[in-house]
Amino acid sequence: MSLYLEDLHVGQSFVSRTHALDAEQIKRFAADYDPQPFHLSDEGAAGTMFETLAASGWHTMALTMRLLVESVPLADGLIGASTEVSWPRPTRPGMVLQAFSEIADIRPSKSKPDMAIVTLRSETRDQNGNVVQVFIARMPVYRRGSEVI
Amino acid sequence: MSLYLEDLHVGQSFVSRTHALDAEQIKRFAADYDPQPFHLSDEGAAGTMFETLAASGWHTMALTMRLLVESVPLADGLIGASTEVSWPRPTRPGMVLQAFSEIADIRPSKSKPDMAIVTLRSETRDQNGNVVQVFIARMPVYRRGSEVI
Repeated sequence: MSLYLEDLHVGQSFVSRTHALDAEQIKRFAADYDPQPFHLSDEGAAGTMFETLAASGWHTMALTMRLLVESVPLADGLIGASTEVSWPRPTRPGMVLQAFSEIADIRPSKSKPDMAIVTLRSETRDQNGNVVQVFIARMPVYRRGSEVI
Repeated sequence: MSLYLEDLHVGQSFVSRTHALDAEQIKRFAADYDPQPFHLSDEGAAGTMFETLAASGWHTMALTMRLLVESVPLADGLIGASTEVSWPRPTRPGMVLQAFSEIADIRPSKSKPDMAIVTLRSETRDQNGNVVQVFIARMPVYRRGSEVI
């Protein structure tokens, strides 16, 4: 199923598969991209606001992106024009993450009649329903048969 | 050098080292976290708004985070309370990325006298000075000797 602009409506929702996160994944991502002590080991997190090992927010975001690519089947792709990301609580080893997304707004372009800016709001939740990330993306979405380039 | 709240002022700037990006890195990150055709190969990008291979925005963000961890030495770490990310132009193979950051705002907490919310604005630029990403992070920053936990 490939969705175009005319297939979308405000309130439309999408649920991803789950992803099981463990300490090894957290440490590996952090070593590559966010080598702060609290993302690298329990010892490094002691005495910080995290207290024990917590994933980099960008790891949570990257994992969420993978879940969104698989669960929000926009025909021309998920391309963020502008985004907001926040983390209401830490992402921890042992969490099973899942992305719950909803079309929050559809704003037709004034200059391009075949295009709208679609706002997607995604919550990444753990296996207990706790929200670890809120992600808001504004994305250009086109009608069937539009010239995207 | 480890910076606390009293060491920061609006307008203070930080420049990172550079990171040379190539197609292999772009494809590997995309395969793990953002497997959309335009992030996986030139062929997959043909006919899309990217036209040729472009990095996932989250790859640019993750690389930028690495550069920020090394160049913005906040004593208690870089911990984003809320963030905004946008990509004015695609990040491409062959680009040499560098993060230019500035303290944009310092807002003292009303409830916690030892803490402020510091807004950091970072531009990620290529070797020609073109901005490929604008990242804004609001982060809690503490004074020397504060109890962070």
